Amino acid sequence: MLKNDLYLRAHRGESIPRYPVWLMRQAGRILPEYRILRSKLSGFKELVETPGLAAEVTLQPVDRLDVDAAILFSDILVVPDAMGLTYDMVEHRGPYFSETIRSEADLFKLDGEVDVKERLSYVFEAIKLTKEGLNNRIPLIGFAGAPWTIFCYMVEGKGSKTFSEAKKLLYTNPVLAHELLGRITDVTIEYMREQVNSGVDALQLFDSWAGILGREQYAVFGLGYIAKIVKAFEGFPFTVFSKGALGSLIDMANLPCTALGLDWNMEVELARSLVKETKTLQGNLDPCLLYANKKTIEGETKKLLNSFKSPRHIVNLGHGVYPDVDFEHAKVFINTVKNYETKYA
Amino acid sequence: MLKNDLYLRAHRGESIPRYPVWLMRQAGRILPEYRILRSKLSGFKELVETPGLAAEVTLQPVDRLDVDAAILFSDILVVPDAMGLTYDMVEHRGPYFSETIRSEADLFKLDGEVDVKERLSYVFEAIKLTKEGLNNRIPLIGFAGAPWTIFCYMVEGKGSKTFSEAKKLLYTNPVLAHELLGRITDVTIEYMREQVNSGVDALQLFDSWAGILGREQYAVFGLGYIAKIVKAFEGFPFTVFSKGALGSLIDMANLPCTALGLDWNMEVELARSLVKETKTLQGNLDPCLLYANKKTIEGETKKLLNSFKSPRHIVNLGHGVYPDVDFEHAKVFINTVKNYETKYA
Repeated sequence: MLKNDLYLRAHRGESIPRYPVWLMRQAGRILPEYRILRSKLSGFKELVETPGLAAEVTLQPVDRLDVDAAILFSDILVVPDAMGLTYDMVEHRGPYFSETIRSEADLFKLDGEVDVKERLSYVFEAIKLTKEGLNNRIPLIGFAGAPWTIFCYMVEGKGSKTFSEAKKLLYTNPVLAHELLGRITDVTIEYMREQVNSGVDALQLFDSWAGILGREQYAVFGLGYIAKIVKAFEGFPFTVFSKGALGSLIDMANLPCTALGLDWNMEVELARSLVKETKTLQGNLDPCLLYANKKTIEGETKKLLNSFKSPRHIVNLGHGVYPDVDFEHAKVFINTVKNYETKYA
Repeated sequence: MLKNDLYLRAHRGESIPRYPVWLMRQAGRILPEYRILRSKLSGFKELVETPGLAAEVTLQPVDRLDVDAAILFSDILVVPDAMGLTYDMVEHRGPYFSETIRSEADLFKLDGEVDVKERLSYVFEAIKLTKEGLNNRIPLIGFAGAPWTIFCYMVEGKGSKTFSEAKKLLYTNPVLAHELLGRITDVTIEYMREQVNSGVDALQLFDSWAGILGREQYAVFGLGYIAKIVKAFEGFPFTVFSKGALGSLIDMANLPCTALGLDWNMEVELARSLVKETKTLQGNLDPCLLYANKKTIEGETKKLLNSFKSPRHIVNLGHGVYPDVDFEHAKVFINTVKNYETKYA
């Protein structure tokens, strides 16, 4: 039994004395102890692929920031990596794949059969170690990238402002696009299932590049595959975060997940009117607010909390916390939420 | 008198036998003749700052693509350049400012008085030459960056995924932010007024980074300044294009401009319901559609045209045309629009 299960209760729409709060990317450069650990390592992937280190870094913000949920320290690109398309994380530049998928022939670069349990064993081991370290204090969130976002990297090979190579494929070879999206989806379901088997208490899909597709294309190439994944975990606490997809929020009300993540461009009141009480909403302060002075952070956080008209809220920023934020400022945000009583105790 | 004034008539909401069409960034790398000219020059800025060349490049798509409006070949960053913050356009990387504005002291890097007429004389000369070359065939659009987008570059110093330095200033020093935005606005009004004096038939503001602000912040730091500019040209054909600002479209209905640009994430039907018949809508096919085969381009273009329920439309992509698009594909898009009869003849 979890000592603090506010996060899970908010997913289920139960009454809660206060709103739960955590930060996307809370494990990472915002914490001095992370920077020290990181400076001793060869690179980002060493951290991701060494279970003891990944668990340590996952636990750091639990101790330091006293959040209501932990999220596994990992990377969404472990999925294409497991599929046979390896990548490097280039310092100050981001991920780089030396091979990309842009034609049917390129599909042969992928492994036919993916033994997820074996290829991603380091993730499952990190989950088990983290659960031990958490000792039932708070829930642990497992995650994966949504198929569309993973597809973007596998086709483009690196970050991009427009991901025009990835989008091009939707127009020039939709059959190949669907084949690749389908494969990513299957591996992701297995990956997330094994995360659950290893002990995570909730799941989240990150669709970082949802916002570069119009509503119609996102329904076909994005939400269709997300729905398949979410369906495989129906009843389990599951958040879908599609950044930039304000125009698709109305479609996302129909996903069989328990929560939707909102970025800071999605007004909570508008979002609520679109999805009604079918979902818990997670978010959504501007990550840049944490650059402000403490009084402003407290004021803006209270303004958000006052706007809630339901127990179905999990408080977070509208994107991952920026690495140069002072963690004391993050703490002001977190403590403001923790000191705020709901009307739903 | 213009031989083809469809574009202007659409701004005024007059009846039109067919919808006008042009492309953002139509002057540029999409055309072979541009690439040839460009290869002979030292850099992008030489092209922008040499009136004869800028005019030549502006006219190229008029001849080749037979569009209903020309847009001056220039760069939004000529404004900070004129204010005293010079930049380099780094090949494959984008703009780079060696100096940035992040404190009150930094304001002294800017010229106190900006003689816009003299500093940007190369733009006004290019307009005059272009008007001669156009010989009243179609209207010429002048443009500038919206103050918020210019501010982003002046604070950040270069492109960015998050523009977190620029956004940080809104929280940490809103007084300085307003001071800088105000100065940019004043120079922009003078700049656009001199464009009108030099002969442009319409104006457009590009707010490329509107989408990184939430609705409330965009109202204060974005639309407030846009409103001031637009007001200075009331009655003149004026388009405001705020990319990514779907959540602010309802606020933009109140701007005293004649048209709003839509990106490909803003559904036309939804946009129309938000702004009613107060504005002409410009856009908004996905730029990546031009990678598709000609049949798909024609089909999707007709679908867009069929969705229009008003003469108040100007057809365009939802963003600038991507440089690696085959211009024959752009022609299919343009010709499909030109062959389509409205119900408003």
